[in-house]
Formats: sequence, structure tokens, C-alpha cells
Amino acid sequence: MEATIEKRIKDSFARQTAMATIGASVTRVEKGAVTIELPFRSDLTQQHGFVHAGVVTMIVDTACGYAALTRMPASAAVLTAEYKVNFLSPAEGEKLVARGRVLKPGRTLTVCFGEVHAVKGGKEKLVATMLATMIAREETGLTD
Amino acid sequence: MEATIEKRIKDSFARQTAMATIGASVTRVEKGAVTIELPFRSDLTQQHGFVHAGVVTMIVDTACGYAALTRMPASAAVLTAEYKVNFLSPAEGEKLVARGRVLKPGRTLTVCFGEVHAVKGGKEKLVATMLATMIAREETGLTD
Amino acid sequence: MEATIEKRIKDSFARQTAMATIGASVTRVEKGAVTIELPFRSDLTQQHGFVHAGVVTMIVDTACGYAALTRMPASAAVLTAEYKVNFLSPAEGEKLVARGRVLKPGRTLTVCFGEVHAVKGGKEKLVATMLATMIAREETGLTD
Amino acid sequence: MEATIEKRIKDSFARQTAMATIGASVTRVEKGAVTIELPFRSDLTQQHGFVHAGVVTMIVDTACGYAALTRMPASAAVLTAEYKVNFLSPAEGEKLVARGRVLKPGRTLTVCFGEVHAVKGGKEKLVATMLATMIAREETGLTD
Repeated sequence: MEATIEKRIKDSFARQTAMATIGASVTRVEKGAVTIELPFRSDLTQQHGFVHAGVVTMIVDTACGYAALTRMPASAAVLTAEYKVNFLSPAEGEKLVARGRVLKPGRTLTVCFGEVHAVKGGKEKLVATMLATMIAREETGLTD
Repeated sequence: MEATIEKRIKDSFARQTAMATIGASVTRVEKGAVTIELPFRSDLTQQHGFVHAGVVTMIVDTACGYAALTRMPASAAVLTAEYKVNFLSPAEGEKLVARGRVLKPGRTLTVCFGEVHAVKGGKEKLVATMLATMIAREETGLTD
Repeated sequence: MEATIEKRIKDSFARQTAMATIGASVTRVEKGAVTIELPFRSDLTQQHGFVHAGVVTMIVDTACGYAALTRMPASAAVLTAEYKVNFLSPAEGEKLVARGRVLKPGRTLTVCFGEVHAVKGGKEKLVATMLATMIAREETGLTD
Repeated sequence: MEATIEKRIKDSFARQTAMATIGASVTRVEKGAVTIELPFRSDLTQQHGFVHAGVVTMIVDTACGYAALTRMPASAAVLTAEYKVNFLSPAEGEKLVARGRVLKPGRTLTVCFGEVHAVKGGKEKLVATMLATMIAREETGLTD
């Protein structure tokens, strides 16, 4: 894993204002796998006090997107074409850890698998699972 | 559409701190259909300056969840079991409008369809499409 | 809708041996929308006597794929990148009617929406809903 | 893994006429995991000569459904609520092997992960990935 790829991802992440707004950070970058963490915050919940499904999705989408980017050419930008998420347990605890990894790299499409675990009292519990398609683009629009 | 259901949804929405954090609001509640709007904010974007896919997902997830709730008994709580989203165009403009509606109500599972449009210069453009499964619960955990 | 596109789709369909094996046929081709029908057969069921979810998926996948093809250049082949299906009611009756239509055409990716209805005693009931991503290819592999 | 569960699954599988029609068989049953195999047949293809995406889906859906059933009470029937499949490579070779396993069991909903590999010249290649929600039912309809 070259430093350049890690730097490129961290620079891109820094431009994602939504990630700063929710307080997420990149904690690990490997070839084909990226980890993002989100400390629990009471202003990110749904009506039952758990972290909102959409916030859970945000971090694992971002982890999968950057995992895909580690396998793309340096000139490529990555966009999310689609994803599917299953929610398995309430997202509660001290923090969430989202891990994305590449299942199948491709010239145009990269398929990724992601998981989000909630960490509570030092123990991890699986909260959500993602299957996602990322698309490589030369800094243009989405499906055109 | 009774006032009680609308009130119940707005009260629940008010407890969703994540919705306040991003600045979303419920703008319409009908039997089987809910609309949520989100004014564009530069602190909700991904690295290309478009609204983050996860934020787009948050509002349409919430619209679908409450659409499902309008068809559930008064004692039920609604949780997201799973969803899939396709992203069709960059989420840019003055605001996003997420509409969720029930495709198939059920005692346990309710299947919903959602769309997010970006409004720019008074014109709407389809940004994302969701197919979601909501689950009715008596205020307990998710799949147990 | 030019006759050439309809002919191209019917010729391609005729090469889908799986469609002949289950007894499906193309009944309608429009620009951006294709209908496929499948008469009920007792050798296509799951353990409860309903048509197997995978068979339901086969016909709506094919309807969506050809709907996408009607919007692609004449030289393109279409492949299924991914789909998600929600099953809403048991697939029983005299026949199934699968309708696929294009939600968003694109140079590389085309997003489609599909529905399968069961026809029983002259009445249609919604059995399944699909959200799919189709990919245009010049007769080569899938994600490479 | 008690013999009774394996027998129960094989008996149920024997009632799935669609599985006999395509020539699939259950080759392994473990607690939380089921394997189904399908020898290649030229009457199960799409227009490019690969096994039809819907046929690939049929076997991995069935593998996931029975994997879920191994974790359900003896009185329960299993139905597919929804699934999402990503297609990664063309389904070609001597046979397909579909493996389903439980990610998260639950009283009502069981979430499963499935993979299909194509076996060609003794080598396995990942063809498709599934994320599915199975629902336990007492031999009744789907979402009611």
C-alpha cells in the first residue's frame, strides 16, 4: 500500500464536508480495504436514540467507495452507483466502525462489501451489511 | 388522513436528532406517502460538492419509514430492515425532495418505494430511487 | 418504436435458452419498456407450490434487460450488473406478467424498474418489484 | 447438525419442482450454511451462452433460504422476503456452486449472504454475490 494512495484518499475524504459534519474519520487504508470510524453522537440518531440508518449508511458507503478507489487508476474519481444495506442490530454504543472491501475490481464497475460494527464496552456487534457498486469516472457525472 | 397520524409522525420526526442536524423537515403526510425536504447545505457534501449519497439516503429512508408508519397500528414503531438505492444523477441544486410511498403494506413487513428529486432553478431532476423494507415493532430491537 | 428494435430483441430472446426452458415469451416491446409473460407450470415451483422466486426474477430481469436495450446503441449488448427484488405476494395463478421499464438511461449504466403481476381469474396482483442496473457492453465480459 | 434438519431440508428441496427442472441438487447442509450445485446445461442460458442471471439467482436464493431454515424452529416455513444480487463474472464452466450462510438469525427475519462460484477446469471463480432477507412463516402468505 503506497503512501500516495493513502494520501489521495485522505485528501479526498477531507473534501467530504458531510464526513466532518458527522465527525467521521478514516482510520485505515489498505489496498482494497478502507476503515472509517464514527464516535457516537446524540445529534445523529433516529427516534429511538440509535444512530440513524442513513448515517450508518454514510460511513460504510464512504468506506466502500474509497476501498474501490484504492484499486482504480490514479486519474479516476469514484462515485456510488448503487448499494443495498441490511440493518441487523440497533446502532448503539461508543462508536461505529465501518469496513469496506473490494469483492471484484473492474475497469468501470467495482463491487464492494461493507460491514458496520458498533463498539460497546470493548465488544463489537454487527450492525449493518452493505453490497455496493462503485463506478470509476474521469471527474464527470454519474450514469452519463 | 387523520390529524393524529400526521401529529404522531411529526412528533417522532422531532425526536430524530439526525434530521435536525442536517436540516431536513417533513413537508407532507398522506396515508401511505410522506415527503421530506432538505435545503442544500455545503456541509453535507461528498468530495465533488454534491450532497453525499448517505445524506440522500437518510431523507428517503425517513420518508419511506414514515410512509410505512401511516399504514401501521397506532402502537407500532417502525424500523428499517433493509433498503437498496440507485443513484441516478448528482444531488445538486437548491434543495432535495424525498418522497416515500407504500408499495405493499403488511402486518410485519411493509415494502416502500422512494424517490429523491433535486430542485434547481424550479426544475426537478430524479437523483435517487429506493426500494425498502420496513418492519413494525412494538418498540423493541430489530431482527429479534 | 422501430420494427428493427423489436426484431433485435425477439432475436436475442430466442437465443435465451433459459426462456424457452421455462416457457416465457416476449409479449410487448416499446421504447424503454418490455413485457414478458410466463404461463404457470407446476414444474417451476418452490416447496409451497408457488412459482419459485428465482423464476419470477428470471422473467423480470429479462424484461428489464431488454427495456434497457431499447435505449442502447444498435451495437451494444446488455448484461445485468445487479438487481434487487422484493417479493410481495405468492406467485400463483394462470400466468405471470413481468414488465420492465427504464428509469434512467445512460451511456454505460441503465437503471430499470420492474414489476411482476400474477394473473388469476382475470385479476392482476403485484407479486414482485425489481430495481436493476444494466450495463452496455460490446459483446464482452461483465465488469472487466 | 442433526440428521433431522438435513432430512427436513432435503424433503423440502424435493418438493421444489423448479430445482428438478433445472437439475440442481443440495450437496451440503450445515447449521447456518447450505450448498447447492447446478451442472451446466445449454438450455439454461441467456443470449451469450452463459447461465442466465435468474438461474444463478434461483440456486443461491434456495441455498440462502435453507441456510435460514436451519436456524428456525421446526414448525417454521421459510419464504424469501427480498434479495439483492451483484453479478461479477459470466456464469460459465462445468457447474455452479451456490453457498448460502446466515449472517444474522432472528425470530422473524433472517439475513443471509450467498455466493455463486463457477467451476471450470477444477478452478472456482466468483460469479455472483447475494444479500437476502428470509422470513419465517407458519406455512402462510408472505407479507401478511
